[in-house]
Amino acid sequence: MIIVMRAGATQTQIENIVTRIEKDGFTAHLSDGSERTVIGVIGDDRPMDRRTYEIMDGVEKSVQVLQPFKLVSRDFQEHDSIVRVNGVEFGSIGVGIIAGPCSVEDRTQMLETAHAVKEAGAQALRGGAFKPRSSPYSFQGLGEKGLQILAEAREQTGLPVVTEIMTPEQLPLVTQYTDVLQIGARNMQNYELLKTVGRSIHPVLLKRGMMATLEELLMSAEYILAEGNRNVILCERGIRTFETYTRNTTDINAVPVLKSLTHLPVILDPSHGVGKWNFVTPVALAGIAAGADGLIVEVHPKPEEALSDGGQSLLPERFADLVQKARAIATTIGRE
Amino acid sequence: MIIVMRAGATQTQIENIVTRIEKDGFTAHLSDGSERTVIGVIGDDRPMDRRTYEIMDGVEKSVQVLQPFKLVSRDFQEHDSIVRVNGVEFGSIGVGIIAGPCSVEDRTQMLETAHAVKEAGAQALRGGAFKPRSSPYSFQGLGEKGLQILAEAREQTGLPVVTEIMTPEQLPLVTQYTDVLQIGARNMQNYELLKTVGRSIHPVLLKRGMMATLEELLMSAEYILAEGNRNVILCERGIRTFETYTRNTTDINAVPVLKSLTHLPVILDPSHGVGKWNFVTPVALAGIAAGADGLIVEVHPKPEEALSDGGQSLLPERFADLVQKARAIATTIGRE
Amino acid sequence: MIIVMRAGATQTQIENIVTRIEKDGFTAHLSDGSERTVIGVIGDDRPMDRRTYEIMDGVEKSVQVLQPFKLVSRDFQEHDSIVRVNGVEFGSIGVGIIAGPCSVEDRTQMLETAHAVKEAGAQALRGGAFKPRSSPYSFQGLGEKGLQILAEAREQTGLPVVTEIMTPEQLPLVTQYTDVLQIGARNMQNYELLKTVGRSIHPVLLKRGMMATLEELLMSAEYILAEGNRNVILCERGIRTFETYTRNTTDINAVPVLKSLTHLPVILDPSHGVGKWNFVTPVALAGIAAGADGLIVEVHPKPEEALSDGGQSLLPERFADLVQKARAIATTIGRE
Amino acid sequence: MIIVMRAGATQTQIENIVTRIEKDGFTAHLSDGSERTVIGVIGDDRPMDRRTYEIMDGVEKSVQVLQPFKLVSRDFQEHDSIVRVNGVEFGSIGVGIIAGPCSVEDRTQMLETAHAVKEAGAQALRGGAFKPRSSPYSFQGLGEKGLQILAEAREQTGLPVVTEIMTPEQLPLVTQYTDVLQIGARNMQNYELLKTVGRSIHPVLLKRGMMATLEELLMSAEYILAEGNRNVILCERGIRTFETYTRNTTDINAVPVLKSLTHLPVILDPSHGVGKWNFVTPVALAGIAAGADGLIVEVHPKPEEALSDGGQSLLPERFADLVQKARAIATTIGRE
Repeated sequence: MIIVMRAGATQTQIENIVTRIEKDGFTAHLSDGSERTVIGVIGDDRPMDRRTYEIMDGVEKSVQVLQPFKLVSRDFQEHDSIVRVNGVEFGSIGVGIIAGPCSVEDRTQMLETAHAVKEAGAQALRGGAFKPRSSPYSFQGLGEKGLQILAEAREQTGLPVVTEIMTPEQLPLVTQYTDVLQIGARNMQNYELLKTVGRSIHPVLLKRGMMATLEELLMSAEYILAEGNRNVILCERGIRTFETYTRNTTDINAVPVLKSLTHLPVILDPSHGVGKWNFVTPVALAGIAAGADGLIVEVHPKPEEALSDGGQSLLPERFADLVQKARAIATTIGRE
Repeated sequence: MIIVMRAGATQTQIENIVTRIEKDGFTAHLSDGSERTVIGVIGDDRPMDRRTYEIMDGVEKSVQVLQPFKLVSRDFQEHDSIVRVNGVEFGSIGVGIIAGPCSVEDRTQMLETAHAVKEAGAQALRGGAFKPRSSPYSFQGLGEKGLQILAEAREQTGLPVVTEIMTPEQLPLVTQYTDVLQIGARNMQNYELLKTVGRSIHPVLLKRGMMATLEELLMSAEYILAEGNRNVILCERGIRTFETYTRNTTDINAVPVLKSLTHLPVILDPSHGVGKWNFVTPVALAGIAAGADGLIVEVHPKPEEALSDGGQSLLPERFADLVQKARAIATTIGRE
Repeated sequence: MIIVMRAGATQTQIENIVTRIEKDGFTAHLSDGSERTVIGVIGDDRPMDRRTYEIMDGVEKSVQVLQPFKLVSRDFQEHDSIVRVNGVEFGSIGVGIIAGPCSVEDRTQMLETAHAVKEAGAQALRGGAFKPRSSPYSFQGLGEKGLQILAEAREQTGLPVVTEIMTPEQLPLVTQYTDVLQIGARNMQNYELLKTVGRSIHPVLLKRGMMATLEELLMSAEYILAEGNRNVILCERGIRTFETYTRNTTDINAVPVLKSLTHLPVILDPSHGVGKWNFVTPVALAGIAAGADGLIVEVHPKPEEALSDGGQSLLPERFADLVQKARAIATTIGRE
Repeated sequence: MIIVMRAGATQTQIENIVTRIEKDGFTAHLSDGSERTVIGVIGDDRPMDRRTYEIMDGVEKSVQVLQPFKLVSRDFQEHDSIVRVNGVEFGSIGVGIIAGPCSVEDRTQMLETAHAVKEAGAQALRGGAFKPRSSPYSFQGLGEKGLQILAEAREQTGLPVVTEIMTPEQLPLVTQYTDVLQIGARNMQNYELLKTVGRSIHPVLLKRGMMATLEELLMSAEYILAEGNRNVILCERGIRTFETYTRNTTDINAVPVLKSLTHLPVILDPSHGVGKWNFVTPVALAGIAAGADGLIVEVHPKPEEALSDGGQSLLPERFADLVQKARAIATTIGRE
């Protein structure tokens, strides 16, 4: 941390800061600039709230030097982590593609979709049994019944299953039936839930909150790793901006930036990122071109009858086309 | 809902929409404009996802007509709701002021602050025992020990206590010791938690998520009311924008807008809204002038030693000054 | 400026940075932290682009220490600047209120409004003759004819006139008829225009861009002061955020923050800030309570017939009520 | 336009709206819903400010039905427009790549860069002679001297030149030396400037403002087309969001969305979109994969000595690598 003093800060004010820094267990290092004195805090000050110093007399501002995350950073581990899900690898040279409906609606819909996405080239299956919906009057998911259907789809197709977990107490239930625990965007900072999945051995798909910075996403991943679970896949799924034509704004920058900051695999969700099916394929391809380790795509055999997110779901045949193009681009940039 | 067809939509496409509307249990009403056909959906279409229609052939967009919330709206109840907390009223002619530290740190700090804010004119006490922190390495709160200290502060001062609940299973514990259940900004869309407090009889202080629209805030309140608990106080606490000089951007517009849309009381949290103690008082006064039913303010006897949010905490004497000015402005605009 | 090296930066990389700093005319000051080396740049590095250092090998990031603005800052001038407009003072103990229609539409409308706002207590008149409109098909203003009507309104009422200037070459024309040059939000970073009004002796009302940071607003004011014109009034008029219920989000924090950073007067435009007439008065009062030096409010005798911004214009009698309440709150917080 | 009445709107209020609609020259079409009356406005109401109706008694809100832009829309012209610049086509099957330094700094730098980008495969040259800078103390460009150097670079390499125009009166000067008129992001809503280039015969490169919606970008293009100049290339260059790790957030969604709304060519500026050279190539490739008609990339032979934007400039050899990969991806998705 660096503490910038106001122009005209007194000697006493500076000494008070130094005393406080030493009391907190760090070493202070002074630097007199032409207009400001700057004080460096030497030591691992990650647990400190830097704003604490800002309220002391004579301080103009404080600046963080160390990245607040550790275990997820490239400083901690330089080489890429590979997360394995029943034989599918995320973070290695290949590109992993997850697909399926937003929600499990009934057995027929789910099984039909599962077979269709497998045939189209998906390597894992998605489907929500517990659905966070902004309205209490909307479809809230089938619950355990939905998990059972997912398990059946897995058995029939051999595809591993990704599904959302919404509360800590759902862990035993969800892991009984499925393979990857998805933390949804709205729960990215539900810390009890993060700690719970951190104590599991199941891979976790952690979605970026729609208004979370990349640093906050990495801090949430840090919660999971700090509990012992290193099998975390990060997912960019669009952020909220002033633009209203699309549902969210896909932060394509996030893909290379995250890859540079962390060793964890990074995938893209173009379906939520753009929110309209006719723009999903171009945005998915953009993600692969930008270096994403995979995709998670909403597919529905009858989008206009979907109970949720029909508007952004691809028909299976369009998804097949997406997979083919995505793999071609992956090859072009030297992936498998 | 209104469905706008593309220029050049065919008769068949229009008929398909009408058929679908009728299948969904509504009546369709056509209107041929100069360049577009517009189809009105007649009936209570709140549970429908309007994007479902957008994927049908020939549709350009759909527009929501009905507000998605019901129980919280002024249409449902025209007069102001008053939420009573041990004799303090939120939503009536007076202005309710809640104050205290961000976190309960130890018995001495909490009791000292409780007495100080009471003397300064606060009518309720705040203090966190369970703390959602973006870093796993930061202070996470005292847990039940913190609740016990809060209960002692309540006993000594007579002030009712507001504290945050982070998971559904904490409900029995938290309500054993405290009066008002706070749902923090990060949990505004933690639907299981909303349903849980909705089944409680305790008043709920629902903070707006830093990324939530006013409509989403009202939908989250709707979750609580739909479960039977009508004692909900809404709290504007700043939203995330591109401006980085302040911690958040206090959405002062939200105060009169919420008061027009809902009968629930609306209070302001200037401490999180601006994030630096020296700007807290002007923003608090702005809230009262804009019509807020109350304030929730962070106060700490030694901000520079606070374990969290010291930078935005007021010293008790500065808080006393805030209370005096806030009450003067309240009187000026015809409140008590 | 401070330069933070990557973990593991080599001695050679550090030396290269030091060499470059010295070549740029500054002194380097090294500080070895526990995990990172930090290099301070001593000297007035304001004209440097700090990102230039970021591309050198081994650098993680750079951090600005000095505020980039000078003449507008409290460091440069501690006491408040007072901008005088025909006897009205902005920045002194009083609160200056400017009012009038969005656009000059015709002689009758403008004169009627001018008399009405004067009677209601306004001290200056606003009205646009040149209108920046997002659509080429919308009313673009009366041009010189509008300026002539404004001059007549000034003559009849004695109120000084504020009007927008859109291009450098309009300066002679606009100053022939009016008193204060308004730079609109869309032109806040039209640097040729800023330089032009900076060479004028007329007071300037500089509106914050709808997506400009406070620092950028101050830098734009710096352009004007750097050319010699110190009579600049800053105006917060709402920023663009994800919230769509209101036209903009009034950044109420901006009022006390700007007052702390600069000696220039700061006023609030609640009409654009909230965008709906029924919320204008509460937001205006919030501005006064937060410490604004004045207000600029849209008033129209027949809002439903206005050619622009009718939706956010107050009727004269509602504006009179606003003035009365604003003055009462000003008195309450110790202003005149 | 559609006007939604409040629940409980009276018959008289509805009649007043109808009368007003007819007075404005349109036809009204009523639709009684279960809870709300909805009134359709039949006719080309583009020039109307829809908020005008919102202030009439009994109105809850109004909704725009027609897209506000006309000449730029796919409704007006279904097939792609091709903008030709000295033999280079933007909007046809190929991908046009523009490259060069942020600013023209001196003759040597500019000529060296011009030859280098040509060799690397660029088809047009960029370079700023007039520079909009947020600080009055930063390098402001070489002015006419810079234009002369650009003309020399064009002569030596045969590459057409793109350069920024900042005020209407610069038109004769800029067109004397260069080929494409760039409107910078800060000037996207400088309407006098838009009208001026609209009356020119030179192709225009219109950059999206960092705070502009796609609709606003299209409306600004409409200004140019409405004056007669149809040679407009749109450029996505990143928008401002809450994320601060990158300079801007590249709105990759904008590429396919704009292509669906307008017939004009759409290119991407990854340099400003991400703001750090090491992320420029992945973002550029993402743009091509998403369907962009071209790229504009900042290249500098000695980025660490650049007077502006060095941090986001590629070395010529890295740019050559980008071009090669971009062309490979273009081929993969069926372009040339």
